[in-house]
Amino acid sequence: MTCRQPLTPVLRQLTRTTSFELGRQSSRSQASSLARTAAKASAASGSRRCFSSSQPRPLKATASVRQAQSKDDFTSTKYPEIKRDERFASLTPDHVAYFRRLLGGNGSALIDGVTGEAADDLAPFNSDWMRKYRGHCQLVLKPSSTEEVSKILKYCNDNLLAVVPQGGNTGLVGGSVPVFDEIVLSLGRMNQILEFDEVSGTLVAGAGVILEVADQYLAERGYIFPLDLGAKGSCQLGGNLATNAGGLRLLRYGSLHGTVLGVEAVLPDGTVVDDLSRLRKNNTGYDLKQLFIGAEGTIGVITKVSIQCPQRPAAQNVALFGLASYENCQRAFREAKSQLSEILSAFELMDEGSQALVHQVTGSKRPLESPYPFYCLIETSGSNVDHDSEKLQNFLESVMEQGIVADGTLAQDETQLRSLWSWREGITEALGHLGGVYKYDVSIPLSQMYQLVEDTRARVAEAGLLGDGEEHPVRAVVGYGHMGDSNLHLNISTRRFDARVEQVLEPFIYEWIAERQGSISAEHGLGLAKKKYIGYSRNPTMVGLMKQIKRLYDPKGIMNPYKYI
Amino acid sequence: MTCRQPLTPVLRQLTRTTSFELGRQSSRSQASSLARTAAKASAASGSRRCFSSSQPRPLKATASVRQAQSKDDFTSTKYPEIKRDERFASLTPDHVAYFRRLLGGNGSALIDGVTGEAADDLAPFNSDWMRKYRGHCQLVLKPSSTEEVSKILKYCNDNLLAVVPQGGNTGLVGGSVPVFDEIVLSLGRMNQILEFDEVSGTLVAGAGVILEVADQYLAERGYIFPLDLGAKGSCQLGGNLATNAGGLRLLRYGSLHGTVLGVEAVLPDGTVVDDLSRLRKNNTGYDLKQLFIGAEGTIGVITKVSIQCPQRPAAQNVALFGLASYENCQRAFREAKSQLSEILSAFELMDEGSQALVHQVTGSKRPLESPYPFYCLIETSGSNVDHDSEKLQNFLESVMEQGIVADGTLAQDETQLRSLWSWREGITEALGHLGGVYKYDVSIPLSQMYQLVEDTRARVAEAGLLGDGEEHPVRAVVGYGHMGDSNLHLNISTRRFDARVEQVLEPFIYEWIAERQGSISAEHGLGLAKKKYIGYSRNPTMVGLMKQIKRLYDPKGIMNPYKYI
Repeated sequence: MTCRQPLTPVLRQLTRTTSFELGRQSSRSQASSLARTAAKASAASGSRRCFSSSQPRPLKATASVRQAQSKDDFTSTKYPEIKRDERFASLTPDHVAYFRRLLGGNGSALIDGVTGEAADDLAPFNSDWMRKYRGHCQLVLKPSSTEEVSKILKYCNDNLLAVVPQGGNTGLVGGSVPVFDEIVLSLGRMNQILEFDEVSGTLVAGAGVILEVADQYLAERGYIFPLDLGAKGSCQLGGNLATNAGGLRLLRYGSLHGTVLGVEAVLPDGTVVDDLSRLRKNNTGYDLKQLFIGAEGTIGVITKVSIQCPQRPAAQNVALFGLASYENCQRAFREAKSQLSEILSAFELMDEGSQALVHQVTGSKRPLESPYPFYCLIETSGSNVDHDSEKLQNFLESVMEQGIVADGTLAQDETQLRSLWSWREGITEALGHLGGVYKYDVSIPLSQMYQLVEDTRARVAEAGLLGDGEEHPVRAVVGYGHMGDSNLHLNISTRRFDARVEQVLEPFIYEWIAERQGSISAEHGLGLAKKKYIGYSRNPTMVGLMKQIKRLYDPKGIMNPYKYI
Repeated sequence: MTCRQPLTPVLRQLTRTTSFELGRQSSRSQASSLARTAAKASAASGSRRCFSSSQPRPLKATASVRQAQSKDDFTSTKYPEIKRDERFASLTPDHVAYFRRLLGGNGSALIDGVTGEAADDLAPFNSDWMRKYRGHCQLVLKPSSTEEVSKILKYCNDNLLAVVPQGGNTGLVGGSVPVFDEIVLSLGRMNQILEFDEVSGTLVAGAGVILEVADQYLAERGYIFPLDLGAKGSCQLGGNLATNAGGLRLLRYGSLHGTVLGVEAVLPDGTVVDDLSRLRKNNTGYDLKQLFIGAEGTIGVITKVSIQCPQRPAAQNVALFGLASYENCQRAFREAKSQLSEILSAFELMDEGSQALVHQVTGSKRPLESPYPFYCLIETSGSNVDHDSEKLQNFLESVMEQGIVADGTLAQDETQLRSLWSWREGITEALGHLGGVYKYDVSIPLSQMYQLVEDTRARVAEAGLLGDGEEHPVRAVVGYGHMGDSNLHLNISTRRFDARVEQVLEPFIYEWIAERQGSISAEHGLGLAKKKYIGYSRNPTMVGLMKQIKRLYDPKGIMNPYKYI
């Protein structure tokens, strides 16, 4: 950690000729890559663990998570209340023979555990990356064309075979993992970039294209994918759309509901929904593609994507501040929106608790000399290095003079930029190292957002569960997240499993959110984890209307059963 | 017209201390206001006329358009193939008595032509501003609450009374005007701004709030409505959403599908769809509100709107160039996106034909000394006047040096800024002055966009219909539009009605667009005008899926009948 640079001296250096000017592009992307590499290494060593927000698992020794899974690890065992829908047929050799004929003799197109032994090959498709969910799927199909997807789904619909569409399988709520013996429909072979218009910035690609591959393709042409997230090295565009992924660029480029121009999808009965418009404007009827964005594969399978991509910014800057109160964080955000305006690309919030834990785990020197109750990380992305630096300088002077910000530091080069980002992106990792974590990904109106952390902390403390000593099951209650999107990650870091913790947390947190008309899932979706809590964010009329849509498109209910609504 | 300023001298003036720095805000808005004032004055004098793109009307003397309408003016007379749906009940005094009880004795809540004489009061609700469509409505209801809307719709649904929701009635395709005796449900009294969060920029407002009122409210708080269009002084937010209005800011702020956070709507059976989220992120189920955006009131009535509003830009600049070819226009657009990037807020295209007609009508001195085949108008909006000016200067130098742009001029003050905009915004007005116009609002992939104008012009010329002399019915075939959105306005200016013109234009234009997977209605919607042409932009499967949605939400078909799909 070498980025310590007191704010005042930094401000003096902020002229057009200082080393503050960053190289073109890529710095943020490299930071992501670093974080991912670290995450992968960590996952491989079994150090990353995470409780479901609603179904905590007993803590295990850190090294044991990646050990051979036992019968206890099956979702069906963990959630005995979920029963296999007996309407669904069980796979037979005849079914497999049909799919084999359809997909050709290509060995890579089908993983068959029905007529042969394929447990090892099936394993990655049966489990999520956090190892929280594990299914009993015996057949993975990997179509390479929309026509194949259509024929597979029609056959499944006709024969009542349940299907789980799967992209990069990087979700956090168990949405892309089978529960029982559903067929996994893996989109990974539909990984072609099909068209790119270098004037309009419109990209058309198969659902199986990996997000980072798409972004690299665009980078070579001066464009950027309007979505960025930690899993970009594995997640696929179809899955991004199906989960309405939010991520790090939403503040700047908006949601997928705005940037996606077209979708090609296949309905359970095999109907191909060709809504793959390349046009930015097309007011000819209901915008049906929107239903597939965020539907988590429950009404059809997205096979192709058309999306509007912005020009890649030439310059990026990152600053990190210490602030005395959440009130000041809100003031800083307001100032940043006003003064940085069109170049503001991230405004992230971290509380002292979260930063202390990162420091405890990494041992890195902290960016600021003194601790503050809150920290904000600001990123700018623009087309002119000098202008961006000057805007940032003016902003920093203004928030310092007004006493909104107590201290701060500004990245002087790409290494420092990555380092500052690591204090935000490294939180999940650090918490995972320390033990079990109850994670809540919520959205609450900004003025009340951090109050949830304080109220939860007070409640856990009042129950005698929170403290420094080993006798307390809860180590810390911390909050961080995308302040620019009113998206809070509330994390409860524990030393060991204790049934009392969950009793204190739930339904308290959900009720707290519901009272403030917040969302119990800001960006992670519903999947299996949040299915039964939707009533806290949606009224019965809305849930009824959603079920109506589900019945309309998937009357036999074969698509991604046991999840969503 | 005083803004003539050769580009080279202007470039020299572009330093931080020149008069180039514009005042904060409002300049663009004032330009709009001016244009609107001119339009209103013109409409009052009866000078604005417009052919339907598909149903040309016989030309009349300019002054006669606003004369008392005759029986021939009814849509039902003009389109004899549209028959009243006999399933619908006719209004009786009992129906009126129910609505009168429901809405109270308030005279302003109901216009009753059923039990009394109210032709004059009903007239504005029965006709669109272009006087192209005219209905036989005898009852206008003006609810002031969602509950009233719900009770009205439930009663109409139970009694098979057809309903046309109406906002500001500024549409261009006859979508908000009744055809027969449908009840008009006017949202104008639901005109309250309900909430505004000054930190997040989230505005919640009634559907009847006028766009300009909302924008002025936001301006006082440093924010801007993420939609701007010529009719802002009359159009209402509910109608903006129902028609998925595009307008002038789409290039910068994106479509309503991305900026709208929540919608409250009422279904025909009276069900209130409470999807009025204030949250930027909320991944809890299907995003049903999206269906109401662009549905043109055919599945329910939007009653409230929640929308994300950006910070208002502090600086705006406008430049106008002459270019030798459409190829150069595309290159200029690419360069503008790259160099102006985050501050680019408009990139408009005008061909010489359109500008010559404006000059012919207004007599104004043209902005550039020599004519060029094409002109582009660029607007920047940013938070720092100096930075924006410098970016624009660099951009202008670059496109001049590369020979992309032949000549150009840059607004030096707000008067010049408005004047430059008038060469773009005044086209519709000028064409209206000259006679009948066939108007097509289409979207085509950018590389082929202007080719439609050339092909249409060639086709009309080949038929001997185009020429300078009075013997030719067609004066000019011109193209202009929102280049940043691939949105072309193709206009055929005529001297008189001639049946051969339409025969040459249609279905040629629709087929041309369909071959290139374009849209026959980029931003105006379907309404009555484009209903029968949807097949040129949507395949039968998509139309079938849309009809399925219509049947799902409006099984009795009472909502805005005879239109849309």
